[in-house]
Amino acid sequence: MVPPPDSPLQRLTQQIAFIAECDQLKEIFRQTINTRSRRPENDAEHSWAFCLCVMVLAEHANVPHLDVLRVLKMGLIHDLVEIDAGDTFAYDTAAMVNQHDREARAADRIFGLLPGDQSREFRALWDEFEARTTPEAKFAHACDRFQPMLLNAHTEGGSWRKHHVTHEQAQGRNAPVADGSTVLWAAIEELLREAVAAGHLAPTRQPAP
Amino acid sequence: MVPPPDSPLQRLTQQIAFIAECDQLKEIFRQTINTRSRRPENDAEHSWAFCLCVMVLAEHANVPHLDVLRVLKMGLIHDLVEIDAGDTFAYDTAAMVNQHDREARAADRIFGLLPGDQSREFRALWDEFEARTTPEAKFAHACDRFQPMLLNAHTEGGSWRKHHVTHEQAQGRNAPVADGSTVLWAAIEELLREAVAAGHLAPTRQPAP
Repeated sequence: MVPPPDSPLQRLTQQIAFIAECDQLKEIFRQTINTRSRRPENDAEHSWAFCLCVMVLAEHANVPHLDVLRVLKMGLIHDLVEIDAGDTFAYDTAAMVNQHDREARAADRIFGLLPGDQSREFRALWDEFEARTTPEAKFAHACDRFQPMLLNAHTEGGSWRKHHVTHEQAQGRNAPVADGSTVLWAAIEELLREAVAAGHLAPTRQPAP
Repeated sequence: MVPPPDSPLQRLTQQIAFIAECDQLKEIFRQTINTRSRRPENDAEHSWAFCLCVMVLAEHANVPHLDVLRVLKMGLIHDLVEIDAGDTFAYDTAAMVNQHDREARAADRIFGLLPGDQSREFRALWDEFEARTTPEAKFAHACDRFQPMLLNAHTEGGSWRKHHVTHEQAQGRNAPVADGSTVLWAAIEELLREAVAAGHLAPTRQPAP
């Protein structure tokens, strides 16, 4: 017997289908590499590490009364759209052109698996993250960038070296961190200087080949 | 120059050291396998999936006003002790004998990397999770078991088949779910019955070999 819509059993059936679908996040691989194994990080690992950063570093947000629960919820779901849209490398400007459209279609499908009220709540959280106007979304973006930044710093340059990223590019990519946390931005500036000094990040002006 | 203890810079240095140490959670492999790739799940992926379950399923907790933020914080850090103590398979009763002592020593070291106030906060969250007396800890345990349970159900028995787990053992292992959520426990009982019927989980009485 098919349960009536919005019965507790119907809700749980939809919620389980959503959770099962989300399991694919573990197979979306990123350009960053993990510190111990040096294998590529996947989006599920990144989402956990992002949330751990939020939990540990919330005191450094630019606003005194951050809604940490909302930032954690954004962290848990911010990359689910990549199940359909794939990971777009942060320095691949060509692929970034239609990134938001691809991801918005993915959000329709994936959050649409949930019961109506939750589907709307999750989509609103993702839209808030993408719009980057609230203090919570700004701090979420700060952690979304700080986390891979730390991985690169702890893997002798990681994805910077692999893709010949320059100091100027890394600064540009990470500049939005300052909107969420000037403390984390100052830490990033220092880490980038150290990476250049250690030869793990190319200085802005490349020598002619 | 070494900054004075508890200066903002000293705090951030300790927090970054903690986050970097926690990156090893990605290399602690579990007995459950992921639905798409069928490779073993690691603790970082599990911690993310656990937290996603909390976010999606909180309405099914036995208490009406669950502190979801505290449950998510428990989910993010509950397995960090396995960086030192390793993963103890849920059906390995011999290894479980001194599990808590090994994990408590790990908690001392790993949470000890944080500034004092945070070290105490994180340790208190882990102790609360382990003690399993508050509604938040009970619901956290419900999700900690429901998540691998779903993985097994979606991988034709996964770690149950590999380790010849019986219906009775799986019921015993998952019974604490009812303390956090009678709804999730009912769903598990149904999933276990379906797994037995499909031949993915051995019935309690094994035929003689």
